[in-house]
Amino acid sequence: MTAEVITIGEELLIGQIVNTNAAWLGQYLSRFGVPLRFVTTIGDDPDDIRTCLNQALQRADIVFITGGLGPTHDDITKKVLAEYFQAGEMVVDAKVLNHVKALFAKRNIPMAPVNEEQALVPAGARVLWNSLGTAPGLLFEKDHKYCVAMPGVPAEMQSIMTESLAAFLKERSGRTIIRHRTLRTIGVAESTLAQKLEPISELEQYGKIAFLPSYLRVSIRISVTGTGREQVDRRLAQAESLILSRVGKYVYGYDDDTLEAVVGRKLKAIRATLAVAESCTGGMLAHFITNVSGSSEYFECGCVTYSNDSKVDLLGVPREVIERHGAVSEECARAMAAGIRRRSGATYGLSTTGIAGPTGGTEQKPVGLVWVGLATPDGVIAKHFVFTKDRLSNKERFCQMALGMLYRALGKG
Amino acid sequence: MTAEVITIGEELLIGQIVNTNAAWLGQYLSRFGVPLRFVTTIGDDPDDIRTCLNQALQRADIVFITGGLGPTHDDITKKVLAEYFQAGEMVVDAKVLNHVKALFAKRNIPMAPVNEEQALVPAGARVLWNSLGTAPGLLFEKDHKYCVAMPGVPAEMQSIMTESLAAFLKERSGRTIIRHRTLRTIGVAESTLAQKLEPISELEQYGKIAFLPSYLRVSIRISVTGTGREQVDRRLAQAESLILSRVGKYVYGYDDDTLEAVVGRKLKAIRATLAVAESCTGGMLAHFITNVSGSSEYFECGCVTYSNDSKVDLLGVPREVIERHGAVSEECARAMAAGIRRRSGATYGLSTTGIAGPTGGTEQKPVGLVWVGLATPDGVIAKHFVFTKDRLSNKERFCQMALGMLYRALGKG
Repeated sequence: MTAEVITIGEELLIGQIVNTNAAWLGQYLSRFGVPLRFVTTIGDDPDDIRTCLNQALQRADIVFITGGLGPTHDDITKKVLAEYFQAGEMVVDAKVLNHVKALFAKRNIPMAPVNEEQALVPAGARVLWNSLGTAPGLLFEKDHKYCVAMPGVPAEMQSIMTESLAAFLKERSGRTIIRHRTLRTIGVAESTLAQKLEPISELEQYGKIAFLPSYLRVSIRISVTGTGREQVDRRLAQAESLILSRVGKYVYGYDDDTLEAVVGRKLKAIRATLAVAESCTGGMLAHFITNVSGSSEYFECGCVTYSNDSKVDLLGVPREVIERHGAVSEECARAMAAGIRRRSGATYGLSTTGIAGPTGGTEQKPVGLVWVGLATPDGVIAKHFVFTKDRLSNKERFCQMALGMLYRALGKG
Repeated sequence: MTAEVITIGEELLIGQIVNTNAAWLGQYLSRFGVPLRFVTTIGDDPDDIRTCLNQALQRADIVFITGGLGPTHDDITKKVLAEYFQAGEMVVDAKVLNHVKALFAKRNIPMAPVNEEQALVPAGARVLWNSLGTAPGLLFEKDHKYCVAMPGVPAEMQSIMTESLAAFLKERSGRTIIRHRTLRTIGVAESTLAQKLEPISELEQYGKIAFLPSYLRVSIRISVTGTGREQVDRRLAQAESLILSRVGKYVYGYDDDTLEAVVGRKLKAIRATLAVAESCTGGMLAHFITNVSGSSEYFECGCVTYSNDSKVDLLGVPREVIERHGAVSEECARAMAAGIRRRSGATYGLSTTGIAGPTGGTEQKPVGLVWVGLATPDGVIAKHFVFTKDRLSNKERFCQMALGMLYRALGKG
């Protein structure tokens, strides 16, 4: 079975909201081995809806439509689809009407008469129950092809998919299975990874290989399609071990793993603790670390020492270090890391000092320069990195470099 | 001029990443009065790229394509477009090649030979400079229609649009002007705002009014379309002043204003300084504050005191306060705020202590509870709030509540 998605809504076209429905549907359908080849976004325009439907039904077996099922004048999807599929008269669905009334009663809100129209459904369509909202989903069929219309509110769309369509999808998706596995790397450029993985054709005998670069890191995704679960899993494992044999030293985690979560697991495993001293990252490093639930088990504290005085006062950085070398310097990064480690009694002290921009750079110390310091039981090390992005991206990359240094110090595995 | 967007990438179709590029482009183009009617997402498939291009060029004057310009085997956009537009041989652009080499040299990373291919461009295409990455944008022309290809990395795509295409868009977008103005509110529910703004029809004689609710705040957007700049600006101003006359006391800023930027401007104006003491927000509050360029002028320092020991040691919170009332308490929030103010010598001390979740809640102190403390030259105040979201959203809302308290203490205007 092949599928397409059409998302309807002016708010998507003018970028007022990001299209999370398309991403969610892509993920959900891929679990059933139903690949998406096209996702189209349009406004509430009858002609455009018909144009897109014609195309989509030519190419795919089932079309998922979101949006335009609300009770106001600009919601036209239901009417357009009823005509398109010649699904007969609009009739009141008593069960839906009771549900709509009950929803308003529960919220203690008077119900405007317009909401009763939500219970009007085309006689020839199947109602897909929407437990969370007033607009039911609708399933149309024509010439053995299907069209599912759902409201654009993400939670409502998701509940219709999982409650009413999982069985339908499972039954019709046939025996095809798709499995994805993402390997997350650190400290290597996309082009270097690609080179070390050559010949890619050898990998692609198992599945499709894709590189996912971002300004923070590169990930490698393996996608395997097949008909038997065992066979698919075996090919996924074969591709993975081949990748690991070539570039395993760069791989820090899998799928949704973040560097801060992986570092946290390592710290917990060896019962070590961490404290951070941040200048240019301004709290973001501590923020990343504390995004991990359970981080209080290993995260002791952080100091965001933005001013020079606070570096001296809170971390005990000698004032002459700042005067002689500047706050953005190897010496200051080392003193900050050692200072927060001493001060907190944590096993590891991690520091950042740099220039996030957009101003404050000089020829010797440009915007994008960061010094990272790491104090361990064995001593203090420091490294510098240079990036060329905007303030927020620089902060983010500085944090990734700091976490990467700690990751390497904690050792692989 | 009409435009379409084609976003290319398997990672979009399987929902591994959300399509933020489409939203950004929609927003950006709407500023130039260039409406989007179709946004299509496809994988790296030559046939699908050609199919979509055929359709899009029939309907629109310019097509923006993102993705598939990287240096690895799965990036095929450049080759497919060069053939499609019969743009001639691939030639080395010396300026781009130097830029690619310089990017690697600056980051002190060895450059794999495959990266040289990034400087290969079709002779008949115009290079659009990508200052942030290795893949240049490309502009193709055919029968007075245009196609712009850009890398999928959001920051790179955005910089190409703003640096190389703003003038092009301005020149060709015709006489229609769309102006948006967003009023950002704090401390008021969407339904209350809507009620106080009634009758909306009185507002809509000037332009379109939309409510943009999020879990952090509600914004009101005014959109005015017209052909004369003066007339459009006047109607925008009329709608704005009518809104302000009804709900002005909730409005803290405009368009992209963040609460941390507005608070920062107020602090700077009165030459006051700020220091923060965070527990549950784990550095996020300092991170928000330091996202504002120039924040070093008023932000002194922050302490992320996650452990009880660090609250005592770094902030001077009396140990008996924690023992008697717990770390999540009014007394602790007050002591933290007073402590960081005293310790840092800043004018204002702001503190957070709460339970971000998903674990750690009790019946008396549930997940989502936060105490915010604020120490000012006039004394110390504290307030508590309760939310019910996931860990990251809770941290975010806690920070907004803390910034809101400081905002109100600094006074309106």
